Amino acid sequence: MKNFVSVDDVEDMAALLHMANQYKNDPYATPQIGNNKILGLIFFNPSLRTRLSTQKAALNLGMHVMIMNFDKDGWALETEEGAIMNGNKAEHIKEGAAVMGQYCDIIGIRSFPNLEDRDLDYKEVTINGFIKYAGVPIVNLESAVLHPLQSLADLMTIEELKKKARPKVVLTWAPHVKALPQSVPNSFAQWMNRADVDFVITHPAGYELAPQFSQPATIEYDQQKAFEDADFIYAKNWSSYENYGKILSKDPSWMITNDKMKLTNHAHFMHCLPVRRNVVVHDEVLDGAQSIVIQQAANRLYAAQAVLKSILDSSTQL
Amino acid sequence: MKNFVSVDDVEDMAALLHMANQYKNDPYATPQIGNNKILGLIFFNPSLRTRLSTQKAALNLGMHVMIMNFDKDGWALETEEGAIMNGNKAEHIKEGAAVMGQYCDIIGIRSFPNLEDRDLDYKEVTINGFIKYAGVPIVNLESAVLHPLQSLADLMTIEELKKKARPKVVLTWAPHVKALPQSVPNSFAQWMNRADVDFVITHPAGYELAPQFSQPATIEYDQQKAFEDADFIYAKNWSSYENYGKILSKDPSWMITNDKMKLTNHAHFMHCLPVRRNVVVHDEVLDGAQSIVIQQAANRLYAAQAVLKSILDSSTQL
Amino acid sequence: MKNFVSVDDVEDMAALLHMANQYKNDPYATPQIGNNKILGLIFFNPSLRTRLSTQKAALNLGMHVMIMNFDKDGWALETEEGAIMNGNKAEHIKEGAAVMGQYCDIIGIRSFPNLEDRDLDYKEVTINGFIKYAGVPIVNLESAVLHPLQSLADLMTIEELKKKARPKVVLTWAPHVKALPQSVPNSFAQWMNRADVDFVITHPAGYELAPQFSQPATIEYDQQKAFEDADFIYAKNWSSYENYGKILSKDPSWMITNDKMKLTNHAHFMHCLPVRRNVVVHDEVLDGAQSIVIQQAANRLYAAQAVLKSILDSSTQL
Repeated sequence: MKNFVSVDDVEDMAALLHMANQYKNDPYATPQIGNNKILGLIFFNPSLRTRLSTQKAALNLGMHVMIMNFDKDGWALETEEGAIMNGNKAEHIKEGAAVMGQYCDIIGIRSFPNLEDRDLDYKEVTINGFIKYAGVPIVNLESAVLHPLQSLADLMTIEELKKKARPKVVLTWAPHVKALPQSVPNSFAQWMNRADVDFVITHPAGYELAPQFSQPATIEYDQQKAFEDADFIYAKNWSSYENYGKILSKDPSWMITNDKMKLTNHAHFMHCLPVRRNVVVHDEVLDGAQSIVIQQAANRLYAAQAVLKSILDSSTQL
Repeated sequence: MKNFVSVDDVEDMAALLHMANQYKNDPYATPQIGNNKILGLIFFNPSLRTRLSTQKAALNLGMHVMIMNFDKDGWALETEEGAIMNGNKAEHIKEGAAVMGQYCDIIGIRSFPNLEDRDLDYKEVTINGFIKYAGVPIVNLESAVLHPLQSLADLMTIEELKKKARPKVVLTWAPHVKALPQSVPNSFAQWMNRADVDFVITHPAGYELAPQFSQPATIEYDQQKAFEDADFIYAKNWSSYENYGKILSKDPSWMITNDKMKLTNHAHFMHCLPVRRNVVVHDEVLDGAQSIVIQQAANRLYAAQAVLKSILDSSTQL
Repeated sequence: MKNFVSVDDVEDMAALLHMANQYKNDPYATPQIGNNKILGLIFFNPSLRTRLSTQKAALNLGMHVMIMNFDKDGWALETEEGAIMNGNKAEHIKEGAAVMGQYCDIIGIRSFPNLEDRDLDYKEVTINGFIKYAGVPIVNLESAVLHPLQSLADLMTIEELKKKARPKVVLTWAPHVKALPQSVPNSFAQWMNRADVDFVITHPAGYELAPQFSQPATIEYDQQKAFEDADFIYAKNWSSYENYGKILSKDPSWMITNDKMKLTNHAHFMHCLPVRRNVVVHDEVLDGAQSIVIQQAANRLYAAQAVLKSILDSSTQL
C-alpha cells in the first residue's frame, strides 16, 4: 500500500483485516520492522483516539514518532497555487510538505473541512497537497471528507462480533448541537459498501451523503423501520451535504434509545467517539451491554498498526 | 501499588523512599522493566517539573510516553453523571478515560481545581473518574487537592539532608498575587504527618488547611515563633480553604527573608517551584547556600521513577 | 564543543562540516552514542524545520527527546535580575533553567526577539540565562539574534553544490509583509565571513545589519549589480537594525525573479524557509531547477546531528 487515504488504496481488504487481527493477538510480533523509520503526525484539529492509537501503533512497530499541532507549533499553511502570500499564512504547502518528507518516512495528517465551500472541502487540498509534494507515503488521520482508519477499525469490530455471515448494519444519523463533518459517515459507507454486509443508511430528508460514497447503499428515511432486524447500529451526526455544512434538524426523536434498540436483532451499538451523551444517544444505551464503543476504539490501534505495516512493507519493496 | 493518588496508596513508605534513593544512585538499574509499556500523561494545566521528571522517569524504565494537553489537543471533558451534553464539552470522562485505558498501561493526570466550588473540587471528579473508568493504574500529577509526587520528592530531600533523627519541619504560608490551589500544602502535610518529623504549619488566621490533611500537625499563627529551631522551612502560598479560593491576605511581612531564616537552626529552604521571587521569598534566601529548591526538583525524577516502578511491579504480579 | 550558540563556539569548522557530511552518508553510524541521554527542546516560538530536524538528529544518535512549548505547556519566564515577580510571569529563568538542567543532558532553545528594544534583544537574555543557570550544554534553535543551526546547514549546502573553489555568495534582502528578526541574516553573514567564499550583502539603505556580524562583508546597495556572477543567491527579509524592528520598505522590485536570476552565474537559489511565495520570491524561481531550498532544509538534519554529536563528545571527555 502506497498511501492510505481512502478504501481505494486497499488492494486486499481481507488481508488487511487479517493483519489487524494478528496484531490484536500479538501486538509486538514485528517490533523492529520500523526501526530507524519516523512517523510524522500532523494535526490541524483536535484528536484523542487517532493521535494515541496511531502513535502507539508506530511504537509497536519500532518506529519513532514526531508529532506537531501544525499551525500552532509551526506555521499556517497556504494551499492555493500561485497565491501571493501577503496574508496570515507563512508557509506554502509545497515547501511544508516537501520539508516534512525530508524528515519523515510516513506522514499522517488530520485536517477537517471548513464546512463552508463544498467544492473546496471535497477537493481535499491539504491531504492531496501532501501526497503531491511530500514524496513519502501519506496516512489519512481524518481528512475533510474521509476517515478510513476509523472505518477499518469499524469493519474489524463488525467482523469480530457478527453472529451471522451477512449481518445487517445500519448507519443512523442522530442529532447534535454543532455542524459536524461528513467524513466518518462517508468513509463508513464507502467501506460497508465493499464489505459483505446488508448496509442501510437512515437519516432525515436533506441529509443524503455524497453519492460517490453512499451508493449503492439502501437509504431508509424511517429510522424505526431501518432498525428492524439490525445487527449493528452505527450512530453519527453529520451536517447536510446538499445544503452544505448546515444543520437542518436537531430533532431529538432521532436520538438512539433503548426503545429503538429493542426494534433490532439485539444489535450492537457503535459510535466513533467522542459522543454527546443524551443528545446523540441516551446513557442507557451507551452504558448498556449492547454498546461496543470502547472495543471499537481499542481496535483503532490494530487497524493503524496494520496500515503502517502495509506501507512499510511496500516502501521496503521499492 | 495500584494507583498513586495520595499517601494512602503507599503500602510501605520506607520501601518507596529506599527505591527512590536507589534510582538516584543508579537511574538505569532497571532499563527494560517498562518495555512495551505506555505511560500516558494528560495535562489539563501547565507543568514543567512534573511533565519532564515523570516523562524521564518512564524513559529510564524503558517505557514509552504519550503526552496530551488534553483539552487543547483533544476534547473538553464532561464529568457530570447523566449530563445532557449540548454545551461545549464534546466527550464524557466515561469514554475519554476508558479509551485512554485501551492505549496506556499507566495514566498520569494533572487537573487543577477551579477554586470556586469547594465540594466539587474536593470530590476530585477528574482523577476519580479516571480511576473508575480507565481500568489501568492512575498517577496523580497534581489533582485539585493533592500533589503526592511532589511530597514524596520533598520527603526524600528532607531525609537526605536532615542533620538529626527527628528534624523540625515548618510549612509556612507566604504571600502571592494569585489565588493558588491547596494541593501542595495539603499533600505535604499529609506526608509529614506520617513521617518521623516534628511538623509545624504556620499561616495567618483564615488559612487553615482542610483538617483531613493538616491534622494532627501543630498550627502556629506566629510565623517567627514557628521558625525557631526549624531544620527545614517549606514555603508555599495557598488560597483559603474556609473562605474557599479567596485571597485573604497579601501581607508582605510573611515573605521569607534572611532575617527570618536566622531564627532557624540553619534551616534548609524548600519550595516546590515555580516560585515568585521577592513576593514569596527574597532573592537573598533563594540564591543563598541554605536553598535546596533545585535538589528538591532533581529528586522529582527519582520519586516518579520509584512510583512507576512500584506500579509496574504490582501490575506484573496480577 | 561546549555550547552551540554562535559560530564562535565552533573550534574546527571544517571538521564539523565533515562530520555533517558523514552523517548524510550514514545517518545511523553512531546509533548508541546518545543512549540514556536526554535532549530537551524548548520553544517560545513556532518551529517546523528546527523542531523536526533537531528531534530526528537526536533520535539518530540514540537520545531521547523531551519537547516543551515552554510558556504554553509550562510557565511564563521572568529574566530580569532582582525582579519583584508580582506580574504575569510565574517562574524565574534562574529556577526554570536550573531545573531543566536536572532533567536534560543538552537543552535546545528557540526564543525570538521582541523587535522593540534592540539592546535587550541583542543581550540574548534567554539563551544566555540558560547558559548561565542550566549547567548543561545549550544549543541555539534560533535566538533573538542568531540561528547557527541554519547557517551550518547553509554552508554545508553551499560546499556540496559549489562549482568553483571560491564561489560568490550573495545575501539579498527581499520584501515581506511583517517585521522579521535579523537572526538568519546575522548568522549567515557571521558564517560566510569565515568561509572560503566571496560574500556580498545587498539591501536597501537603512537595512544594514549589526556590524559585529556583517563585517567585513561587501555591502552593495544595487541588487542587480550584486547579482552579477553570483553562484548562490540567499534571499531573506529582515527588519531594520538601525531603526530597530521597523519595516522601512516593502518595495516589490526587490522580489527575486527569473529575470534577476539571469544576471547570475546560473546561481542556486537559497532560502531558510518558511518563505512567502510571490512576495519574497516569485513562484518561477522557487519551482525552477535552480532552487535548492528543499535540499537546504534536508541538510538541517545532518547539521544538527553533527552539532549534537560534537557536544556529546565533549561532555563525555569531561
